[in-house]
Amino acid sequence: MDRIMKERTSVGKAKEIFFEVIQPLERTEILEIQDCVGRVLSTSVLAPRNVPHYRRSAMDGFAVRSVDIIGASSTNPVMLQVSDEIEEGASVRVSTGAYVPDEADAVLMLEDTISIGDMIEVRAQVHPGKNVGDVGEDVRKNEIIFNKGHLLRSCDIAVLASLGISEITVYAKPVVAIIPTGNDLISLKDSELPPAGKTLDINSLMIGLYVTKWGGEPRYCDIVPEDRELIKEAVNLNLDADFIVISGGTSVGEKDYVPDVVASLGKKLVHGVGLSPGKPTALGIIDDVPVLCMPGYPAAGLVALFAFGKPAIQKAGNIPAMPDLTVKVRLSGKINSREGYVSYARVILEDSTARPLMTAGAGILSSIAKSGGFVIIPENVEGYEEGNEVEVVLIE
Amino acid sequence: MDRIMKERTSVGKAKEIFFEVIQPLERTEILEIQDCVGRVLSTSVLAPRNVPHYRRSAMDGFAVRSVDIIGASSTNPVMLQVSDEIEEGASVRVSTGAYVPDEADAVLMLEDTISIGDMIEVRAQVHPGKNVGDVGEDVRKNEIIFNKGHLLRSCDIAVLASLGISEITVYAKPVVAIIPTGNDLISLKDSELPPAGKTLDINSLMIGLYVTKWGGEPRYCDIVPEDRELIKEAVNLNLDADFIVISGGTSVGEKDYVPDVVASLGKKLVHGVGLSPGKPTALGIIDDVPVLCMPGYPAAGLVALFAFGKPAIQKAGNIPAMPDLTVKVRLSGKINSREGYVSYARVILEDSTARPLMTAGAGILSSIAKSGGFVIIPENVEGYEEGNEVEVVLIE
Repeated sequence: MDRIMKERTSVGKAKEIFFEVIQPLERTEILEIQDCVGRVLSTSVLAPRNVPHYRRSAMDGFAVRSVDIIGASSTNPVMLQVSDEIEEGASVRVSTGAYVPDEADAVLMLEDTISIGDMIEVRAQVHPGKNVGDVGEDVRKNEIIFNKGHLLRSCDIAVLASLGISEITVYAKPVVAIIPTGNDLISLKDSELPPAGKTLDINSLMIGLYVTKWGGEPRYCDIVPEDRELIKEAVNLNLDADFIVISGGTSVGEKDYVPDVVASLGKKLVHGVGLSPGKPTALGIIDDVPVLCMPGYPAAGLVALFAFGKPAIQKAGNIPAMPDLTVKVRLSGKINSREGYVSYARVILEDSTARPLMTAGAGILSSIAKSGGFVIIPENVEGYEEGNEVEVVLIE
Repeated sequence: MDRIMKERTSVGKAKEIFFEVIQPLERTEILEIQDCVGRVLSTSVLAPRNVPHYRRSAMDGFAVRSVDIIGASSTNPVMLQVSDEIEEGASVRVSTGAYVPDEADAVLMLEDTISIGDMIEVRAQVHPGKNVGDVGEDVRKNEIIFNKGHLLRSCDIAVLASLGISEITVYAKPVVAIIPTGNDLISLKDSELPPAGKTLDINSLMIGLYVTKWGGEPRYCDIVPEDRELIKEAVNLNLDADFIVISGGTSVGEKDYVPDVVASLGKKLVHGVGLSPGKPTALGIIDDVPVLCMPGYPAAGLVALFAFGKPAIQKAGNIPAMPDLTVKVRLSGKINSREGYVSYARVILEDSTARPLMTAGAGILSSIAKSGGFVIIPENVEGYEEGNEVEVVLIE
């Protein structure tokens, strides 16, 4: 294959070219806040009110007029009435977070008092404002609480709820059309044991589950035979999507029409990248819809999906990039890599070591099941020796 | 408060005590594979068949009898018939992944042939077995594909699908009863702007969303007033759950009955931990149901939830621990910590620095909204200086 597919764009360059043409979508939707974990704000959120919206006590104790207890101490206590209202010589029992009556200017800690009938003996003085949270002290009305583009976490939903916000406008999820191609593919719905020479289309499901995980909305399309016109038709039917992933038909075989079809309908940006496995990946754009053509082999497709699909779909969906989940471990075997390629070496995580998978061909299904993560080897590194400490990107 | 709540267990010791009493649940359920991302296998999965279940071609080319082309080369080519069946002097066109007829013992690469009418000129010899994947080469029937306890990723679902598996037995999600306590709490359903002195119960929603994220099934309970008998009743009603989280009522105020109720119904294991914020956290067990009593203040509750709730709920649910998502950045300000406490310092992430949040009281809601993560400072560290490189655990 390499002898025929001569073109090879570096992973870095390919990403640059591809991501540059991807426009984050502008479509929005209004949702109830409890459904917004992992969604992205399409406008900044201003506080609709002050928090607290009343003066609140920061302590369990008594709301007082500080002037009434000037000079109070354990050796020189002052007596105050416990009442429902503040007036000269009177206090009101308050819990933490409670309303502090307007006439009071401070809260005396419970520990600084001794209760005697309906009176308290006050054993400390307080200065005005002590233990009283002012209106708007925490959040001021019309203050920006979250910026446009903020990815909402569970705790943020609680913050919104506390402000009395029950619905919010977020970016719509990017619709990702998934088009499987191949004459020998059989839908998962049709068969559990395909006839010899036929392969179950597992890539659609795999891509769809990742798209969901990464914040997109998968649209599963029917399997398309390796026919130029039929592939064209399937792509044209999905140009209303925000992103298209085509699986299979990217290597230079007799019937691998996919990148040509992309070129004929729009622009083929890259075909052949320095990615191992995953070299036959192609990238393009048709009418503003980014197209990722990934190899049909599951392991190669998975790598292409992680390297290009995830960041591209997230860019299309306005979803901020997050760091990968990684662990640092020592290699229990040597990893060789391919010169000029970014290599995704699958490893088995065992205790605190990573064991390279030996039979890691692009088509080897069991290698996906066994591997806990990838050691990603840059183009300019030859590989790693047994005992080297490496960073393993966990397969999510 | 500190003067009264004298007990203080270290975070490490408290975790040890709490996690020791938590029994992973044994309840299972059968689900369709596409619904199993993030679920945990309750039994090992054996391959129900060989993969491939037929001898498959590893290349685009021609299935041949290797004996027919011994000695073939570009200078000494051999001619073969292209046919539908293998016999002496005949070959069958195969694509990558295709069935290799039983009579053939090798696949010749397309690139080593020149097509001439219904013949091919063969310009290389192949040894027996070349480019042919054997039955079971990738996965052998009855081989263990995934071990019991494996957390299913999207790619694993694809592996299961490829084996013809459409349903799988996984552990049930742990049911986590969430009991909010407090006289001043108002349900989110009842009000958007609570009267002065009243607080919206945002903790239930926050806890519930995190429980969902961590693989549990939240059960939202009604708000319980600060009354010993009513709290008892609420807890008793939820002893069919796998885990109980009680929010509020853990600090030593007049009406903070929660830890006492836990002690009276079962065993209070810990009350008061060296966690800042989050000191009033209590841990207990009632009839094999672990109970986490977390402070009602959102920021303190959040820290208690991350420090104790997440690992405990995941242990109860058989969910393997994953590393936290972290970034390494420099501090743009000093962080002080409290001696003898594990401190969760909230920081704002700006470009490649972390700015400590100054007004980070336990009740300060805005600090949650603003902070991208925590710098977790161990008990024996006094704090960090401006310019220090620190690891920030991103708030998920």
